[in-house]
Amino acid sequence: MALPHRLSFLKRASLTRHLMAQKLFKIMEDKKTNLSLALDVTSQNQLLEMADELGSELCVLKTHVDILRDFTSDFGSKLRKIADKHRFLIFEDRKFADIGQTVSLQYKEGIYRIADWADIINAHVIPGPGIIEGLKGSNLLLLAEMSSSGTLAKGAYTKKAVAMGEAHADTVMGFISLQRLSELPGMIHFTPGVKLKSGKDPLGQRYRTVDEILTKNQSDIIIVGRDITHAKHPKTQAALYREKAWSAYVQTIA
Amino acid sequence: MALPHRLSFLKRASLTRHLMAQKLFKIMEDKKTNLSLALDVTSQNQLLEMADELGSELCVLKTHVDILRDFTSDFGSKLRKIADKHRFLIFEDRKFADIGQTVSLQYKEGIYRIADWADIINAHVIPGPGIIEGLKGSNLLLLAEMSSSGTLAKGAYTKKAVAMGEAHADTVMGFISLQRLSELPGMIHFTPGVKLKSGKDPLGQRYRTVDEILTKNQSDIIIVGRDITHAKHPKTQAALYREKAWSAYVQTIA
Repeated sequence: MALPHRLSFLKRASLTRHLMAQKLFKIMEDKKTNLSLALDVTSQNQLLEMADELGSELCVLKTHVDILRDFTSDFGSKLRKIADKHRFLIFEDRKFADIGQTVSLQYKEGIYRIADWADIINAHVIPGPGIIEGLKGSNLLLLAEMSSSGTLAKGAYTKKAVAMGEAHADTVMGFISLQRLSELPGMIHFTPGVKLKSGKDPLGQRYRTVDEILTKNQSDIIIVGRDITHAKHPKTQAALYREKAWSAYVQTIA
Repeated sequence: MALPHRLSFLKRASLTRHLMAQKLFKIMEDKKTNLSLALDVTSQNQLLEMADELGSELCVLKTHVDILRDFTSDFGSKLRKIADKHRFLIFEDRKFADIGQTVSLQYKEGIYRIADWADIINAHVIPGPGIIEGLKGSNLLLLAEMSSSGTLAKGAYTKKAVAMGEAHADTVMGFISLQRLSELPGMIHFTPGVKLKSGKDPLGQRYRTVDEILTKNQSDIIIVGRDITHAKHPKTQAALYREKAWSAYVQTIA
């Protein structure tokens, strides 16, 4: 099926009332980057250092706060300063997956206090719409598809995730997916599992190329992890991904 | 469809090679309890106090470590002492839901170090079998069904979750479900959302009765939360649930 013509991020910013989606569209256009970095390190200090080193290349920094061995309660405020300096958004990839009452506590309470510092969070739709109600007031991505082998997030499941997101467009600002799934201009598609070459890791993660995801599948943002963080020269590698991703985007809206 | 005759927990202990499943079956028979308490409080001290107060009634204590405001690194060892004193297992209801590489870090790393103190953990199957590989060495429950309204964990999804669990019976020891789903004797079924009266909460959680879950649906363990923790006399209420649940179990194996 041929998708309708693709609108620019700037145009889409004007067509949504979701404030965080608007903000992200503008950051992308201003900085000319649709690259999100998955900073999956287990040291908070290393995370903050790399965020500062690579921040200029990113629209979104993706974190897993719960793998940091040396987490301290000033993590959020320290990361916020770096985010403001380089103008990127902070996306805590918590993958909330419980009933509304519980995710509400997990988001706001506990020692991580994710609600205090994360611009964007995400959630699985498996518990039903109550999970979105429980995260009301956040800026939420729903997991509609996953990049891992044998995932059950496909077909009817994916369709239900998209419908649930579109029905809650005050909270939901997009999807984790392998492709463009929603025609609502404010819905932003993030795709993980992207590398320069396609392939697979020993625990079932599958990798796809930038062109496959952004040109063929018309997703909006690529999420790249180890291929940047474990590169010899992370900054050069991040710049390369940024350039590739941005030119793929520009070509599809031409 | 009529299910085969139900075996006693003691018999099932002899029919599984999963050590934690054996241990749980024996605790249940010895203490005569198939009650699990969901201790969803946001204070670590309150959690530890209530665990000590109610521990004698329980086979399993269910925690959400990430909602504790005052978490300290000795939480695990303190809870372990109480668990050993009253002989119950600790089930951290983390609902892991990411790719194998990430859940492995979330389970072992970070400041919670769940692997160090939780006897049992759980995971969604949505990412595919890589999530079970990533949690190898743990004692894992898979979420095959949920108690919340509009959940997508049903039908074909539930069947795939059961198949995935049965194919990894070295790690997986059971399911979160609304009913008995697997005929493998070592697979233990835990059901949340149980109250004395059926009903619904404002964020979509649905409640079912003890008899519906244990007698009609032939689940093994009921998980009860607010109806005990928020009762005027939590200990009396826990004893009541324990008695109701145990007599429902005894009747079905008679």
